[in-house]
Amino acid sequence: MTPTLAPIDVSPRVDRLRAAMTGTGPDALLVTRLPNIRYLTGFSGSAAMLLVGPDAEWFVTDGRYRDQSSQQLRAAGSRATIEIGATQAEQLDALRREIAAFERLGLEAHGVTWAQQRLFGERFTPCELVATTDVVESIRRVKEPAEVERIRAACGIADDALAAVGGGIANGPTERELALALEIEMRRRGASGTSFETIVASGPNGALPHHRPSDRRVERNELVVIDFGCVVDGYCSDMTRTVSVGRPNAEAQRLYDVVLEAQQAGRDAVRAGVACVDVDRSCRDRIVAAGWGEAFSHGTGHGVGLEIHEAPRVASTSRDTLAAGHVVTVEPGVYLPGVGGVRIEDTVVVTDDGCIALTASPKDLVL
Amino acid sequence: MTPTLAPIDVSPRVDRLRAAMTGTGPDALLVTRLPNIRYLTGFSGSAAMLLVGPDAEWFVTDGRYRDQSSQQLRAAGSRATIEIGATQAEQLDALRREIAAFERLGLEAHGVTWAQQRLFGERFTPCELVATTDVVESIRRVKEPAEVERIRAACGIADDALAAVGGGIANGPTERELALALEIEMRRRGASGTSFETIVASGPNGALPHHRPSDRRVERNELVVIDFGCVVDGYCSDMTRTVSVGRPNAEAQRLYDVVLEAQQAGRDAVRAGVACVDVDRSCRDRIVAAGWGEAFSHGTGHGVGLEIHEAPRVASTSRDTLAAGHVVTVEPGVYLPGVGGVRIEDTVVVTDDGCIALTASPKDLVL
Repeated sequence: MTPTLAPIDVSPRVDRLRAAMTGTGPDALLVTRLPNIRYLTGFSGSAAMLLVGPDAEWFVTDGRYRDQSSQQLRAAGSRATIEIGATQAEQLDALRREIAAFERLGLEAHGVTWAQQRLFGERFTPCELVATTDVVESIRRVKEPAEVERIRAACGIADDALAAVGGGIANGPTERELALALEIEMRRRGASGTSFETIVASGPNGALPHHRPSDRRVERNELVVIDFGCVVDGYCSDMTRTVSVGRPNAEAQRLYDVVLEAQQAGRDAVRAGVACVDVDRSCRDRIVAAGWGEAFSHGTGHGVGLEIHEAPRVASTSRDTLAAGHVVTVEPGVYLPGVGGVRIEDTVVVTDDGCIALTASPKDLVL
Repeated sequence: MTPTLAPIDVSPRVDRLRAAMTGTGPDALLVTRLPNIRYLTGFSGSAAMLLVGPDAEWFVTDGRYRDQSSQQLRAAGSRATIEIGATQAEQLDALRREIAAFERLGLEAHGVTWAQQRLFGERFTPCELVATTDVVESIRRVKEPAEVERIRAACGIADDALAAVGGGIANGPTERELALALEIEMRRRGASGTSFETIVASGPNGALPHHRPSDRRVERNELVVIDFGCVVDGYCSDMTRTVSVGRPNAEAQRLYDVVLEAQQAGRDAVRAGVACVDVDRSCRDRIVAAGWGEAFSHGTGHGVGLEIHEAPRVASTSRDTLAAGHVVTVEPGVYLPGVGGVRIEDTVVVTDDGCIALTASPKDLVL
């Protein structure tokens, strides 16, 4: 069953985009990245372009999406004019009529292929194409209450799914079976799918941060890293827990304790106005102090929303600063080749004086 | 359980790529599209680049994939030199050292973003960047026996999954429940996932070719379009069946009969040496003759392999010609707003004197 959610209103988002664009260069922006189009129009299909000018927007898609686009744009409060083009040529013609009014057109440099940019350059002559970066992504950082509600719903479904399958881990499922069981439980609770490929990494497999579930059986007294999430109305969740059936050896227990302490230190550092590098450092210092600095081979976290990885980045090389309404993960990990790994991750929403965790599964190592 | 499959050997593929590149312009090709990288190296991860020069290849990825890339490239017979770069800058430096030997470097114009192309232009100066299109995709068209085996395995799993859930349709599941049941059965049989978002479109929803499963319950005596597929070792399956619990009305029955006849006509037209437009026409003529030409709003089919949609295209605007070893879908459909739709689709492998269907589910309308 699909959860009931408050409606989303996209029109203030388009206003925010216009405010962000003013005085920065292009007269209009051609949005081609699908998560950005969904953010600005409510459209969830797989093919569309959105032209945002100073006073109006034009949404272009193909005949398959005639009904869906008109329903979704209306429901989301979009004021965009919808144009249907059967072929790419027809769609570009429709855009060209509007683009003729502009001198400089922004493209999403990370969201168009080189082939598209070359084609647009030909078709939209004499309009000058301007490479833009993260224009819509930047306004997507601060989540509205309706967005937090969706991420919270996705996180809650993941929590419930883990609780539902947790007992079965003692039966020694394969990694694939355990991943599938989690996914089934999430779908049954209303998720539309997973937010990324579920990771179940048992024993030595845990040393690979991005291990794919295999036919290896989960054994007793070993570390099992479970990293998974789901999607609710387009919004993602992300959570990692590391568990063991029976008590693992002393080294594994110490690994777990250090990562758990680091994860809590990272969460404690999250607050509006704090630089992401400082959150990363709070987390990383604990692991470095334990002598495993080299084995924490990734950043501390990332933003979560319509995409599973989005701004801001929480890493030692990040230039981002947290603001109230950002939703980020805190997920330190330590990976020891031949031994295994531990990662513990929550998704949290940043507030003025700290953060609120949206994932709530217990953090007991031993099941 | 994962099916046991004959190993894939990528080295002849790289030789074919070099033969295809000779005399066409660039001295080397930087492959960035992940399905192409998988095809040429066996690597299944989410981040890598492959530089193919006249005498050697260099594979670049990040630290997460150190072990996986070395295992997968060795298992697939790749001779590429593996370079690990922690950051993008390090990866580009590693490539630059090799690219210095070339005057003209081909990029996949549909596989790099404009931002990447600009960055490569800066970093690889004075090497000239050349836009290429479908170089690797073209050699991927003709499938090797080991590839057909994988697509056949995926098709067989989809057949078995439909047989397993078919009886339950009479119980009136929601579209979402039915889609989930199919996906569970495919995963249990060893598929790594779905090859695209499963479509279950019941009653009037069938008028939308790309309908997303909803909470609507499947009712008796109505058309239900089920379009789904799975992935086995990277290779996709694709099949559509339209069914009804109990006999639908005379119009629906006639719609079904016409589409079934058209689908058979399309299959009968498939043979090595035949132009794709002619397959499309054979199929489309039957539907036009029945007065529903406008309601067949998409092409007749597409290639299937490492991607769910790949070359060749089977459509009225296609310039492709079928060859032995191509794997394509034949999937006419008719969509009537307010009434519903019918689509029937098989995945077939092209032979010198016809084709062999890889999907084998029965085509009885009434369950």
